[in-house]
Amino acid sequence: MPYEFTKEGLAVQEEVKRFMADHIYRNEEEYFRQYHEGGDHSYPPILDDLKAEAKKRGLWNLFLPHLREGDPGTKLSNVDYAPVSEELGKVRFASEVLNCNAPDTGNMEILNLYGNERIREEWLRPLLNGEIRSAFAMTEPAVASSDANNISLRIEKDGDEYVLNGRKWFTSGIMADRCKVMIVMGKNDPDAPRHRQQSMIVVPKETPGVTVERSLTVFGHEDRGGHGQVLFENVRVPADHLLGEEGGGFAISQARLGPGRIHHCMRTIGVAERALTYLIKRALNREAFGSLVAQKGLIQDWIAESRIEIDMAREYVLRCAHLMDTVGNKEAANEISGIKVAIPNMALKVIDRAIQVHGAAGVTQDTPLADMWTSVRTLRIADGPDEVHKMTIARRELKKYDPDFKMMPTRSDAEPHAFARP
Amino acid sequence: MPYEFTKEGLAVQEEVKRFMADHIYRNEEEYFRQYHEGGDHSYPPILDDLKAEAKKRGLWNLFLPHLREGDPGTKLSNVDYAPVSEELGKVRFASEVLNCNAPDTGNMEILNLYGNERIREEWLRPLLNGEIRSAFAMTEPAVASSDANNISLRIEKDGDEYVLNGRKWFTSGIMADRCKVMIVMGKNDPDAPRHRQQSMIVVPKETPGVTVERSLTVFGHEDRGGHGQVLFENVRVPADHLLGEEGGGFAISQARLGPGRIHHCMRTIGVAERALTYLIKRALNREAFGSLVAQKGLIQDWIAESRIEIDMAREYVLRCAHLMDTVGNKEAANEISGIKVAIPNMALKVIDRAIQVHGAAGVTQDTPLADMWTSVRTLRIADGPDEVHKMTIARRELKKYDPDFKMMPTRSDAEPHAFARP
Amino acid sequence: MPYEFTKEGLAVQEEVKRFMADHIYRNEEEYFRQYHEGGDHSYPPILDDLKAEAKKRGLWNLFLPHLREGDPGTKLSNVDYAPVSEELGKVRFASEVLNCNAPDTGNMEILNLYGNERIREEWLRPLLNGEIRSAFAMTEPAVASSDANNISLRIEKDGDEYVLNGRKWFTSGIMADRCKVMIVMGKNDPDAPRHRQQSMIVVPKETPGVTVERSLTVFGHEDRGGHGQVLFENVRVPADHLLGEEGGGFAISQARLGPGRIHHCMRTIGVAERALTYLIKRALNREAFGSLVAQKGLIQDWIAESRIEIDMAREYVLRCAHLMDTVGNKEAANEISGIKVAIPNMALKVIDRAIQVHGAAGVTQDTPLADMWTSVRTLRIADGPDEVHKMTIARRELKKYDPDFKMMPTRSDAEPHAFARP
Amino acid sequence: MPYEFTKEGLAVQEEVKRFMADHIYRNEEEYFRQYHEGGDHSYPPILDDLKAEAKKRGLWNLFLPHLREGDPGTKLSNVDYAPVSEELGKVRFASEVLNCNAPDTGNMEILNLYGNERIREEWLRPLLNGEIRSAFAMTEPAVASSDANNISLRIEKDGDEYVLNGRKWFTSGIMADRCKVMIVMGKNDPDAPRHRQQSMIVVPKETPGVTVERSLTVFGHEDRGGHGQVLFENVRVPADHLLGEEGGGFAISQARLGPGRIHHCMRTIGVAERALTYLIKRALNREAFGSLVAQKGLIQDWIAESRIEIDMAREYVLRCAHLMDTVGNKEAANEISGIKVAIPNMALKVIDRAIQVHGAAGVTQDTPLADMWTSVRTLRIADGPDEVHKMTIARRELKKYDPDFKMMPTRSDAEPHAFARP
Repeated sequence: MPYEFTKEGLAVQEEVKRFMADHIYRNEEEYFRQYHEGGDHSYPPILDDLKAEAKKRGLWNLFLPHLREGDPGTKLSNVDYAPVSEELGKVRFASEVLNCNAPDTGNMEILNLYGNERIREEWLRPLLNGEIRSAFAMTEPAVASSDANNISLRIEKDGDEYVLNGRKWFTSGIMADRCKVMIVMGKNDPDAPRHRQQSMIVVPKETPGVTVERSLTVFGHEDRGGHGQVLFENVRVPADHLLGEEGGGFAISQARLGPGRIHHCMRTIGVAERALTYLIKRALNREAFGSLVAQKGLIQDWIAESRIEIDMAREYVLRCAHLMDTVGNKEAANEISGIKVAIPNMALKVIDRAIQVHGAAGVTQDTPLADMWTSVRTLRIADGPDEVHKMTIARRELKKYDPDFKMMPTRSDAEPHAFARP
Repeated sequence: MPYEFTKEGLAVQEEVKRFMADHIYRNEEEYFRQYHEGGDHSYPPILDDLKAEAKKRGLWNLFLPHLREGDPGTKLSNVDYAPVSEELGKVRFASEVLNCNAPDTGNMEILNLYGNERIREEWLRPLLNGEIRSAFAMTEPAVASSDANNISLRIEKDGDEYVLNGRKWFTSGIMADRCKVMIVMGKNDPDAPRHRQQSMIVVPKETPGVTVERSLTVFGHEDRGGHGQVLFENVRVPADHLLGEEGGGFAISQARLGPGRIHHCMRTIGVAERALTYLIKRALNREAFGSLVAQKGLIQDWIAESRIEIDMAREYVLRCAHLMDTVGNKEAANEISGIKVAIPNMALKVIDRAIQVHGAAGVTQDTPLADMWTSVRTLRIADGPDEVHKMTIARRELKKYDPDFKMMPTRSDAEPHAFARP
Repeated sequence: MPYEFTKEGLAVQEEVKRFMADHIYRNEEEYFRQYHEGGDHSYPPILDDLKAEAKKRGLWNLFLPHLREGDPGTKLSNVDYAPVSEELGKVRFASEVLNCNAPDTGNMEILNLYGNERIREEWLRPLLNGEIRSAFAMTEPAVASSDANNISLRIEKDGDEYVLNGRKWFTSGIMADRCKVMIVMGKNDPDAPRHRQQSMIVVPKETPGVTVERSLTVFGHEDRGGHGQVLFENVRVPADHLLGEEGGGFAISQARLGPGRIHHCMRTIGVAERALTYLIKRALNREAFGSLVAQKGLIQDWIAESRIEIDMAREYVLRCAHLMDTVGNKEAANEISGIKVAIPNMALKVIDRAIQVHGAAGVTQDTPLADMWTSVRTLRIADGPDEVHKMTIARRELKKYDPDFKMMPTRSDAEPHAFARP
Repeated sequence: MPYEFTKEGLAVQEEVKRFMADHIYRNEEEYFRQYHEGGDHSYPPILDDLKAEAKKRGLWNLFLPHLREGDPGTKLSNVDYAPVSEELGKVRFASEVLNCNAPDTGNMEILNLYGNERIREEWLRPLLNGEIRSAFAMTEPAVASSDANNISLRIEKDGDEYVLNGRKWFTSGIMADRCKVMIVMGKNDPDAPRHRQQSMIVVPKETPGVTVERSLTVFGHEDRGGHGQVLFENVRVPADHLLGEEGGGFAISQARLGPGRIHHCMRTIGVAERALTYLIKRALNREAFGSLVAQKGLIQDWIAESRIEIDMAREYVLRCAHLMDTVGNKEAANEISGIKVAIPNMALKVIDRAIQVHGAAGVTQDTPLADMWTSVRTLRIADGPDEVHKMTIARRELKKYDPDFKMMPTRSDAEPHAFARP
């Protein structure tokens, strides 16, 4: 899969690395100090200084690719953005400093592509400026939401308004004060064809009828922006808050998820690289049973396995990025699903080894490893569990050989017998 | 799962270990010399001497458990037989020397339980004496035979004879001169209920209409007894050669497979133990890059993993044996399937490590490792592939919570969408 | 490995199951409500009621095996205790209700065996009564503590007192109000032979010079009893607080860790069983893409794999328990290390699958799965990382073949070349 | 890692695909028929026709990259050659038809680079013409040959001849009649620095003193060219048969192994692709338990995993090829070792799944799967076992952080204690 970085891309990559060195790593401790002082979901003030610096350097909204003439954003291709994103992935808050953090990135893309003038002015502009944050409300607590058909929150037209009723959860980012707006996916027409039943709509967080019922923990702790459970009771928003057209929600969600997934994967490679650095440094600094930990053959094997796995994963993500840049997200669907499965699993292996090499320290707040682990672990579920993505890959592979192939038999009552096989 | 070895069992275990030391290991090289001289499927003459010695010591037909009063066999319980079988598993031909080799063991059990006087005299007796060998013909080349329903060889009554038409393969043992008889599974009534359509019948190898079409290789080489593809064209056998009753074939096959599987597993633990011995000895005798291979941390880790995996597997097999002895094969179905899946997979890991430690030597004829690997690999398929056994385990687990649970939806036309999940 | 449950053991197992059904599961929600109300490290009042009920039923201190005549404790053998412990493992706080929770169990064993009259009266008695809790201070933040040689906290005799100076961390349980006492491992004679340098001593938490510096989080959250970092600055305790004799610390720690490890493993099997129950129930209650999740072949495979892995693991632990009961902890060292490695790794696989089947819910507070995962993950590090245990297993295996074998070459300067192997 | 295929490269790729379709697949059965008729190590006559056709199309010696002006070979870059090699890997004998088969490719490269006029005329010319075949004799049976230092075959100057004494094995290809010449690695100066002790020399197979002692089987069967054990007793060759200079053997072997490894890896990706095709086709053509095998969720998961793993691996190999093309083999050492480890392991997983889906057929001669498995399995050992390559990767990673890092402690007598960790 041949591809190349552009000269502009290489320049940005260099600039981002410098920025990380000059401003991010050295403020890491201070960031966490401020955050713990502020408490769960708080906004560490240092972020404002760092954002100002990033803007000054032109390192802002780098994620926004392939847009219409006159659009905002730096318009890096996915291939060029990949190494940038990897760099940002190495520190928890670096993406936010460059206004390249989820779920705002995906939300900004959608607002840019499907929002009308008013929406773009009211919500996209402050988001692009990093003044507010946003949430994305799709998953529901009562159903397997990876099957879009299951989505049950109702969006009903009533005059020149839409009325929303239902409940969402894992509405990521909603717990933060700075979060001011949500994009909500709901069902407006249960009788339409399977993938034309859903719509997406913009809902200001302060709209009457919106209740953040509770915050969901992730492996026992609160993520910074939090993951909220949100109740919608007769929530009314103006009709022009609908994104695109009625019944277009599924299509928009698909458009959103391609870039969202690859950004996650790029960042996750950065996470893995940093975990490996932690592993190696620790191994070089601890002795046990007569040698450095780094001189133990098993640990050496872990280091090599990690290097191989990371490098292999990176190339796979770049291939995917290149396909998205050239043949488009739809044609790259197999790769988008593929990296979504492969990269977090790879990173979890590397992080797990790094934790193990740190002993007790590895599970504590003294390294970023435990935080890395829990956040990467959720990626195996977020945006559809791995298993669903693999089903779609298998379907495509099978259809290459039999275009009429169905994933399940249309009728069967067979069962394996109690005592397998005569 | 509490259980105990009996005094008699412990005595036999000791005796078998002595026999292995006195007669098997020291003749291993000679056995293989004779076999290669004789060619594929030949019978190394040394086996006769060894069998005579085994009989003299009373180490004969130890596998035959739980039979009727007056029956042949040493009647060890499954628990007592387990360590015996493990010991025998360490050398390719040891089971045969004690007349405890597959598929004869399973065949003798069936003939003993379901054969009439004539069958027992003509075929069981010489088998129990180790004078002839037998084959078991169930799998068919054209269908997935792990689903008994698929079996298509026809057995039709015609006067006082049965007529067989169809094709079998992986009829193990059939290529050997000494093999004189087959037990064949076929369908006698396609309209009967699912598990009452099949029958089992004794077919002398020399019956007209029986053609051994070819020998199937296993990873490129011929197994000693060979795996034959056998064509049945209007093969006629007397009606009294039917085992049990018409339609009873499925039930007999189930009765046969429980012991068959556990014997394989017990032997396979012996295989794994011996592979570990090879691994360790090699590691203690080779130097590379400044240390013994045994001083490499990674190899040490492999040794420990192997020890853990073998010991864990052995206990699981013993639990299964104990259940078979106490509550019966049917109640032990989950465990029988469980060991069938777990033990060969465990052994393959250990053997693979041992091969790797041997370098090039590990894949050659200079160690038994390559032979171990290919024969254990086939166990993941023989007697039903792992995946079918796991389906039956899952079914039982799920039915604990929902007795009406069906393994597949009775009607569905849903498909995961092209681009997974909004 | 033959063994049996005793009649008494079976009766206690039944009684514990009843107690779980009558008092634990139904109060699970209330317990966590009270705990969250009370805040990190708080003591939910409901525990007192439950403890009273447990005592009334005689389900108290069941862990204390094999003691001297006239000793406290129910004296279940390890084999008999195993199913009890598995049952208790299913709910986070059940062990505490029966006064069978770590690290108190191990501490009580040591105080019972090595404490003098005064220590037993002042500290063991209230611990056995469940009135106070205790902590165990061995691990140190600055060194790889799995190598006892590295331990650096100093214990020095000064008149009729010992003076402690140093720093510990992962002093589990220390953050709770009810925790009143620690057992501390330190070095009293750096010039003694390797395993005679350490001593253990009882240190009341309120002793001047003891400072709990901070609490360590585990994957971002606080464990109930907390894991403290504790500074010892000229901490003086009476000389009779030393346990056993000077230089006896290493031996005591070994005595302590055998039972400690097997208890963890037994409980962890209960954790895995419960995770599997969660997995299955969820799979039976969610639909996606046209079928129940339980009707997906991949999920069925996970269920079967989990059943096999759990059953296999349980037998391995029982073998270990039986060896500890019959030939003693020292002879069972390979098995104690083996289960320590095998069981948490097994459980993590099962829990991971259960999380995945739950989707987003699996990482939240809505199921115990996330908590299970983080607590079991720490077991791969606690009491020595897996890798160290595997080294000791490998050493024993290798010494079977070469009694003089050394784990590392005594002198080497070889390196693999830059570009491996011609 | 950015790179591109050239226009010429793309044209050759297309041409090779056409050739495979027109001449290889359709003659596969005939090839194997002729081979089995001819017996082990025989040369199926059909190869001559196919070679003639390949030459006619200009598909000949495509492997020879980066040579001197006026050199033979098509000079595809490694990147351009990769997809060609993948295509050839799909059928056992396709590489040979295009004169791109190991070990001849590596040997031709060396002869081209280091052979004098005479050697090039006598041996390189007929090899480039595909008239003869060659063998490479490096590995020795008595030592761990992945450590070049261990190599013990002696090469001693005696007048204007060199005299060779020693024994090699796994001299691949030597058993074939057409094999006429070997390149032999031996030690000419045991007192020189570590990597200056070895030399390489050309030895005609018919030289007096050369005895092919026996053929080594691979998992029980003979490979086509065979793997010979070769005794060298006072074997005398003219001094001008030495390749390069005395002491240059190690360097040459390194030069040889880079391309050799990447060719193996490229081909192995083709093997994996074809195994996946077999898997899918079988799954679409077999029913069991009420559905197509392809409709089983577990098998669908295998298909997806295989697709992901293959695609990821291919990108990794391309990255490696690109590095070899641009910064050179030495700078690409980490990647060369990385692919050498990653690709065969990946392919073995895919092949294993394909075998399992085929049931009994999967281990027989009826599909190429069993042959694929055994030949790919040997790649984990050939050219240095995976573990050695990982050591070298680890060393490079560790040296990034500590340039003076030593892989083993220079002096140690520590041991983990019998009962791990207090």
